[in-house]
Amino acid sequence: MDEKVRATYAVVLAGGRGERFWPKSRAARPKQLQALTGGRTMIEETLARVEPLAPPPRQWIVTSADLAGAVGSVVGPGPRVIGEPLGRNTAPAIAMAASEIARSDPEAVMLVLPSDHHIRDVPGFRSALGRAAELAERGYLATIGIRPDRPETGYGYVERGEAVGGGCFAVKSFREKPDRETAQGFVASGRFYWNGGIFAWSVPVILDNLRKHMPALHRATMDWQGRGGLAAGPEAFGEYFQPLEGISIDYGVMEKADRVAVVEGDFGWDDLGSWEAAARYYREDGSGNRLSGRALSLDSSNSIVVSDQGLVALLGVEDLIVVRSGNAVLVCRRDRAQDVRRVVEELGRAGEKEFI
Amino acid sequence: MDEKVRATYAVVLAGGRGERFWPKSRAARPKQLQALTGGRTMIEETLARVEPLAPPPRQWIVTSADLAGAVGSVVGPGPRVIGEPLGRNTAPAIAMAASEIARSDPEAVMLVLPSDHHIRDVPGFRSALGRAAELAERGYLATIGIRPDRPETGYGYVERGEAVGGGCFAVKSFREKPDRETAQGFVASGRFYWNGGIFAWSVPVILDNLRKHMPALHRATMDWQGRGGLAAGPEAFGEYFQPLEGISIDYGVMEKADRVAVVEGDFGWDDLGSWEAAARYYREDGSGNRLSGRALSLDSSNSIVVSDQGLVALLGVEDLIVVRSGNAVLVCRRDRAQDVRRVVEELGRAGEKEFI
Repeated sequence: MDEKVRATYAVVLAGGRGERFWPKSRAARPKQLQALTGGRTMIEETLARVEPLAPPPRQWIVTSADLAGAVGSVVGPGPRVIGEPLGRNTAPAIAMAASEIARSDPEAVMLVLPSDHHIRDVPGFRSALGRAAELAERGYLATIGIRPDRPETGYGYVERGEAVGGGCFAVKSFREKPDRETAQGFVASGRFYWNGGIFAWSVPVILDNLRKHMPALHRATMDWQGRGGLAAGPEAFGEYFQPLEGISIDYGVMEKADRVAVVEGDFGWDDLGSWEAAARYYREDGSGNRLSGRALSLDSSNSIVVSDQGLVALLGVEDLIVVRSGNAVLVCRRDRAQDVRRVVEELGRAGEKEFI
Repeated sequence: MDEKVRATYAVVLAGGRGERFWPKSRAARPKQLQALTGGRTMIEETLARVEPLAPPPRQWIVTSADLAGAVGSVVGPGPRVIGEPLGRNTAPAIAMAASEIARSDPEAVMLVLPSDHHIRDVPGFRSALGRAAELAERGYLATIGIRPDRPETGYGYVERGEAVGGGCFAVKSFREKPDRETAQGFVASGRFYWNGGIFAWSVPVILDNLRKHMPALHRATMDWQGRGGLAAGPEAFGEYFQPLEGISIDYGVMEKADRVAVVEGDFGWDDLGSWEAAARYYREDGSGNRLSGRALSLDSSNSIVVSDQGLVALLGVEDLIVVRSGNAVLVCRRDRAQDVRRVVEELGRAGEKEFI
């Protein structure tokens, strides 16, 4: 462990498609480039949150090549935007970024963050992230565990073990999406957290763990670095990335590594997984409707309305999600919010590119 | 009765607001100026249907002053478009038109037609209208009775009496909107028709009946004609029209007159009273949905979708009406189709002029 504080980099993973937010989220402007809960886009919010730890010159955004231009114009000239030639899940993206940071700053601390989550308590979040960075300086692979407030079956969980100081814990196990009963047990125990995909480690530690647990990925990454890394251009990036397996860092490294620790976080985290989740941030009208944009509701209740332009009028309906955005309108039963991506799939099959 | 055939004029009443067809029907472009069932606007369809009996120079359209320009640009230079300074129901509009026709053609036959009904069997309609015109030449006030195919409680009914020749009947009574049981009796009897608001009479006969049954209206009309009629300009028109009572020709004349006859019509008449009615002309998708424009339906049934531009996607819903037109979207439970005008009223109260 070094005495001096190492430089901290934020690597923001922004390759998602956000299909559950269709028709607002589109292929060319997905969820992370939308302002779903307020004035700024989710990726801008993400960068602003980490800025005290990692200012723009040390903010790296990994997105898909086709989105790099749009991301760049949203985040401005400070952060570095890297366009992946194709999506390969989180482990390859992290290996790529870690190896590239190592070229100029081999001892750096690296934070990894999703680009499309909502966080209510920003000071609380920064405090947790700071503790994770301290764990990283102590040689841990650190993850932030979100204290669960319900037995959610759609998330992975992290089980804490022994205390390791600073209010943090060794990780005893990672658990995939549990069934309802198991999830209830997790919440009741007080020892389980949601895995929110927010990590901290030092560059040498993550590279060493990749070498141990994902040797093929590590070797390909080192070969690519030997040819120059990102500076070698998009063709070399493609040759490196294309053959890689798409594996998550959770599955590929975190679940197998020895020195893994969790920082408890309780800062109003929300992965904004669907319109149902986003609607919690819209105005309520007294009939249980949640409204964003211009809406008129007559004899209607418990519905979610989003209108980017123009007006949406409800008459005599309930339990619906209605979204008018750009050239498309979605009308969805409220308990089908998770299936909105099926609309996108169907449009893809039908070749309706202008609506995707 | 003259030996020679008199010239026939068609007076099309086009002052309606079509509020039940919001958001497609708007104040500046109401139902009659929309193509709700096919390629041409309803008013164009109406004029084309009567053209063999009344060619464009003898087609008169009575609408509101604020719509006269829009109507004129839809129907072209042939027909005469008259803009009423304010709406006063059908009796004043008919008195005005009859007195004005009388200036140049005092013996003319005058057909009166709504501008926004749908008729499937155009030859059948023309045949019925021809027989009504013959009754008019014989001095009758003629109405076309639509053979009912269901006990509709939303229409007025006409009861037939003695045969008067040519397959037509004297009218025994006019009956206002009946309750359900009464309507069932009407349909079962075979002696009742729907009153579709389609009339034929000669100009001297209708003026004589107005003099007898609506003397105040008749006197005001004659005074106005004494000052020059329409040629005297909009100010004189306003002075004439403003004080008139808004009364229907059915109530003001037809129910009181002696020599009234009905022609049986069975030509696929539809007053297209609501989205529910219009949807019968849209494509069916196998799940009971009726679609007009670009629509995608997933796990959805028995819904009506109209999209003027862009796409409407349904997911997991049923029994809805969804209309995307211009700057507004309507989402309405299907059994509330008659209440769509309440949305327009509410928008009016809220001063939301851009959406009305």
